[in-house]
Amino acid sequence: MKIAVDVMGSDKGPVELTKGAVAAAEKGGFQIVLFGDEKIIKDALSTLKYTADVEVVHADETITMCDKATSVIKEKKTSSMAMALSAVAEGKCDAVVSSGNSGALITGATFIVKRAKGVKRPAFAPVIPSATGPVIIVDSGANVECRPEFLAQFGKMGAVYMEKVMGFENPSVGLLSNGSEDSKGTDITREAKALLEKSDCNFIGYIEGNDIMTGKSRVVVCDGFTGNVALKTIEGMGKFVSAKVKNLLTGNPIRTIGTLFMIRGIKKFKKEFDSKQYGGAMILGVRAPVVKAHGSADGAAFGVAVAQAAKVAENNVCGTIASAFETVQE
Amino acid sequence: MKIAVDVMGSDKGPVELTKGAVAAAEKGGFQIVLFGDEKIIKDALSTLKYTADVEVVHADETITMCDKATSVIKEKKTSSMAMALSAVAEGKCDAVVSSGNSGALITGATFIVKRAKGVKRPAFAPVIPSATGPVIIVDSGANVECRPEFLAQFGKMGAVYMEKVMGFENPSVGLLSNGSEDSKGTDITREAKALLEKSDCNFIGYIEGNDIMTGKSRVVVCDGFTGNVALKTIEGMGKFVSAKVKNLLTGNPIRTIGTLFMIRGIKKFKKEFDSKQYGGAMILGVRAPVVKAHGSADGAAFGVAVAQAAKVAENNVCGTIASAFETVQE
Repeated sequence: MKIAVDVMGSDKGPVELTKGAVAAAEKGGFQIVLFGDEKIIKDALSTLKYTADVEVVHADETITMCDKATSVIKEKKTSSMAMALSAVAEGKCDAVVSSGNSGALITGATFIVKRAKGVKRPAFAPVIPSATGPVIIVDSGANVECRPEFLAQFGKMGAVYMEKVMGFENPSVGLLSNGSEDSKGTDITREAKALLEKSDCNFIGYIEGNDIMTGKSRVVVCDGFTGNVALKTIEGMGKFVSAKVKNLLTGNPIRTIGTLFMIRGIKKFKKEFDSKQYGGAMILGVRAPVVKAHGSADGAAFGVAVAQAAKVAENNVCGTIASAFETVQE
Repeated sequence: MKIAVDVMGSDKGPVELTKGAVAAAEKGGFQIVLFGDEKIIKDALSTLKYTADVEVVHADETITMCDKATSVIKEKKTSSMAMALSAVAEGKCDAVVSSGNSGALITGATFIVKRAKGVKRPAFAPVIPSATGPVIIVDSGANVECRPEFLAQFGKMGAVYMEKVMGFENPSVGLLSNGSEDSKGTDITREAKALLEKSDCNFIGYIEGNDIMTGKSRVVVCDGFTGNVALKTIEGMGKFVSAKVKNLLTGNPIRTIGTLFMIRGIKKFKKEFDSKQYGGAMILGVRAPVVKAHGSADGAAFGVAVAQAAKVAENNVCGTIASAFETVQE
């Protein structure tokens, strides 16, 4: 198992990501190939003790957060991201991880790694915490407008991931809508609902916004516009609440005394909100695992995403998705 | 100023809502007309001390949460909701408040009170708390699919409300999208963006899901599908977080001791999250103020919504909206 790791183009920089990736390889017993500025990476490696098999491939260019999504297949073909994706496309590596530009990574996944046969549209699929455990949102940004058959495929792809990687047997799939009654939704969601009802998914019907965080279904299906708004709304609400909780706990000296009674609780509280525990967002529907770590991921969070990529490759998530759609007409 | 109040069809029942409405009338110095089961309402009134001018109008029927939206104009024309809406349509009352079935109230507002001239589509518009103060979401459920010109009108209607009722001068208007760049969004949001840029709104461009709770704009414009998902996602996240905070504070006896140091902080914390402080959701774009109180509103929250209806009528929000669109071709 060999994982291609793009260590460039993120907030924390290549040294931090190199450390995280090496620690993950060391712990997981797989090989990694680090793509990026050779000098910086080798300097970082020289400070580390490890026995894992670590290769370094130099890349001249870095895709920044400001670059266009298409730069990965046009102006910056020799960037670390493009080279890491190419290594997977050429079969030299089994999966790829990057915490760089999301749009570029989706474009690169689609046009370099390429769509799996039968998959209509690859989707961006992060896993978030909920009251009943992890939930995957498919799609959360890759496809702004979706035909019903795209949505139905998102349900299946999400279910394969939640079963193969997260260990949920026959995971439930819900279709995000503006109400639970059949009459709700748009023409597109109503058609998608009919398709999902006929599918082999454990489809539970329409779910509503509040059902995401209560964890009513393991897979939340929606178009990329709605999924992006929902995901970012959750993030915004999380930040709003964190600030309020912080103020509640430490807003004045007397309250701060109170927090001494709940130090362990506060640590647990923070951990439960941290979606980095589940790794990065998957790009589902392409021929090999492509994992997008958070742009602000530190070494530890990046390492979780690298280990996740190895697990997705080991469990043949992409093969299972491809075989689910092999009879679909292109 | 005379407010029509439908006290039926909510979770807490007519006695609780009658008390809340009477207290609001007493404090605000306006008249109310209570629509519902005469006997229950009069019994409730007999237990109260008040000097406010309170009328009671008996209604045989109640629209329940299970009734179809169209019941208010078809099967249940003599329901308390239909009669309260008719009283406003006929000019006998200045505004109407109900905490009953949302779909029925929107249908009744549109077909009984009627659209204001020039308004393309009435919208459902709740106000929620954010890091920078109250924010109105227009639309959050009345119009699942929207043309660009509907969205542009939502911006103007929300801005009038935030200025006239909430006291924000020249309130900022943001259009909810899946990213802030011009290239983001759908064909419809991009056209709506162009219309808003040309309008007299204080339009700040695209905003993202996380900007709702950070309060980047006072008015959040979106179609009813997206708005409904965003609003319910916020509610779901709120519940998820509340449960976690409760567990953090009282999960074991030692932590509970800690909470003794922060009792006042906890009260403030709860209050800041309570969107009932801003009253009910407005149905904007109809000829008179129609306010939807929360289905689970208690007397106090219902009273806030009744007072809000009086304030919306006093400040001539509907007249201002109508004059903004009087030159619009129907």
